[in-house]
Amino acid sequence: MSRQQVYNFSAGPSVMPESALESARRDLLDYRGGGISVMEMSHRSPAFQEIFDSTKAKLKAALQVPDSHEILFLQGGATLQFAAIPMNLMEGGTADYAVTGHFSNRAAGEAEKYGTVHIAASSAGTGYDRIPAQEELSLTEGAKYFYYCANNTIYGTEWQYVPETAAPLVCDMSSDILSRPVDVSRFGLIYAGAQKNMAPAGLTVLIVDRALAGRELPYTPQVMSYRTMIEADSMLNTPPCWCIYMLGLVLDWLETQGGVAGMEQLKRERARRVYEVLDNSRLYIPHAQPGSRSDMNVTFRTGDAELDAAFVKGAAARGLLNLKGHKVAGGMRASLYNAMPMEGVDALVEYMKEFEARHHV
Amino acid sequence: MSRQQVYNFSAGPSVMPESALESARRDLLDYRGGGISVMEMSHRSPAFQEIFDSTKAKLKAALQVPDSHEILFLQGGATLQFAAIPMNLMEGGTADYAVTGHFSNRAAGEAEKYGTVHIAASSAGTGYDRIPAQEELSLTEGAKYFYYCANNTIYGTEWQYVPETAAPLVCDMSSDILSRPVDVSRFGLIYAGAQKNMAPAGLTVLIVDRALAGRELPYTPQVMSYRTMIEADSMLNTPPCWCIYMLGLVLDWLETQGGVAGMEQLKRERARRVYEVLDNSRLYIPHAQPGSRSDMNVTFRTGDAELDAAFVKGAAARGLLNLKGHKVAGGMRASLYNAMPMEGVDALVEYMKEFEARHHV
Repeated sequence: MSRQQVYNFSAGPSVMPESALESARRDLLDYRGGGISVMEMSHRSPAFQEIFDSTKAKLKAALQVPDSHEILFLQGGATLQFAAIPMNLMEGGTADYAVTGHFSNRAAGEAEKYGTVHIAASSAGTGYDRIPAQEELSLTEGAKYFYYCANNTIYGTEWQYVPETAAPLVCDMSSDILSRPVDVSRFGLIYAGAQKNMAPAGLTVLIVDRALAGRELPYTPQVMSYRTMIEADSMLNTPPCWCIYMLGLVLDWLETQGGVAGMEQLKRERARRVYEVLDNSRLYIPHAQPGSRSDMNVTFRTGDAELDAAFVKGAAARGLLNLKGHKVAGGMRASLYNAMPMEGVDALVEYMKEFEARHHV
Repeated sequence: MSRQQVYNFSAGPSVMPESALESARRDLLDYRGGGISVMEMSHRSPAFQEIFDSTKAKLKAALQVPDSHEILFLQGGATLQFAAIPMNLMEGGTADYAVTGHFSNRAAGEAEKYGTVHIAASSAGTGYDRIPAQEELSLTEGAKYFYYCANNTIYGTEWQYVPETAAPLVCDMSSDILSRPVDVSRFGLIYAGAQKNMAPAGLTVLIVDRALAGRELPYTPQVMSYRTMIEADSMLNTPPCWCIYMLGLVLDWLETQGGVAGMEQLKRERARRVYEVLDNSRLYIPHAQPGSRSDMNVTFRTGDAELDAAFVKGAAARGLLNLKGHKVAGGMRASLYNAMPMEGVDALVEYMKEFEARHHV
């Protein structure tokens, strides 16, 4: 059965590789002849343990995670990590937060419950249209960690560098993990909600330096303690098995596409094609400043809310879905995650040009 | 494609209705002609909102949830609720816990971080082989709530009555929700990990009296606050969309089977057939005391660990899977959840009789 050709520009949950979905469908009722679905497997069964271990191994290989760091498969989304991170790492002290968008702002707000938050930088004043430069970062001596969000899904900005800090780096990579190589050894903690570049919603991947575990506040729930979850290899309780399985299938696909290096080439090219239209347009206004632009989420507007709505509606009519911007940002947003085929980008570019020709005279 | 005929007696994640899995497979790449998978849908999209709302409505109807109570679709499993419940309801005071098994014991241990735990009853002394009677419960005046676990998956005991208490009832129904009618209005809070009778692992269903919301401790993570999640209709952040979708499919199946009343008849009959073998056996020793026996998880042993292992191995060889008891209890366990067909029960009964005939002289 072939599906209607659409391109899904949703910011998350978002497009997944067709081959991963095909594999899931093929084995849905009967995984490898065992007679049961992955959804029916005990998480303690050898069959699921193999899925779990191989998925973890594939992720370790894809991101070249060093042995000093542990990979955890958790629940609760980035939003639970907004609290778990300070509970585990803040020790009631101070942490530096770079506030470059909606989610880093929420993370900073949540952390205030557990210690002192120092705003190391903020681009709120200009509508979160840029990423601060290294020399703009105000760093606290003795900070427990430095927190930032690598890619701001809503505003369409992305850090083009890894900050230099004395404190351990904690990074929310929800919307650009697996889209480029990362030197994991430079980070104390990397985490990501899976529902953009990895798997269906319901899985949070954490990569944490084992040296940072064991500092949790006394009232930290067991299942939120990094130390406890490391000791239990993420299975203190039942993990989100189906999402872990899907992550494994996505990583199989990623491997065939050249891994994260291949993804980076593709991501640069996808974004280049869309920004080129924006930069040559007399209709579209890109939101993010050059140098801060996200390759994953391209944000723009016409300056006329009715025209924006017409753009989104016309796009949907030709199968270009979910181009409406986030409600707090308005305008349009094209999310170009790993699984977005170049054909989808070209279809978008063609539509953008046509729409401009029709509406700008 | 028909799958190999096996019967999956796993305690969770566990057997799911075949019709639900068939629907999921049919629509996996293209949900209702929209061209995308449910796994790819934005949780803010009309298509997913419809899945969310209809699943909630079906659950409300199936359990006749009164308007005073809110249904929440959460992440983190029962284990996160072990902390969330006292964080939200204990107000630093005292709560009564009935400890009738492994998980209620862990819940009580976790609650000690947030207030005073009074053990209202415990069957630890006799290997958790029974449920206390109403008159055995030691209740604290002014307790913030009374906590119990309706069905003890590991030890195979199940409450046959709803306790009478002045304090609000908080009940872990992870392993017997939707298996019998429940008067929800008698409970302050019911919660359940989905991976037994409801959906794949990764979803926690909570049914909470709105009057109990808003008492959370100041350091409660946003996503764990019942008040916040009620206000956000479970969508403060991305919910576990696929699991919610699967729950909807399972509830469609449940409706065709006569709802929870139909499930109760089936559950009584499944359990009756297995306990009958145990009660007429000179080989098998049932673990739970009569009057406390679970219809969902039947636990037994031969008294000889090698023979137990032979039983489990021989069962697997004929497609009767996952009959090994939990590691903390040993012996055997047959989990007979809603989706277990009566044919599976009969195949188990036949095997039990044959095995006894071969091994007991």
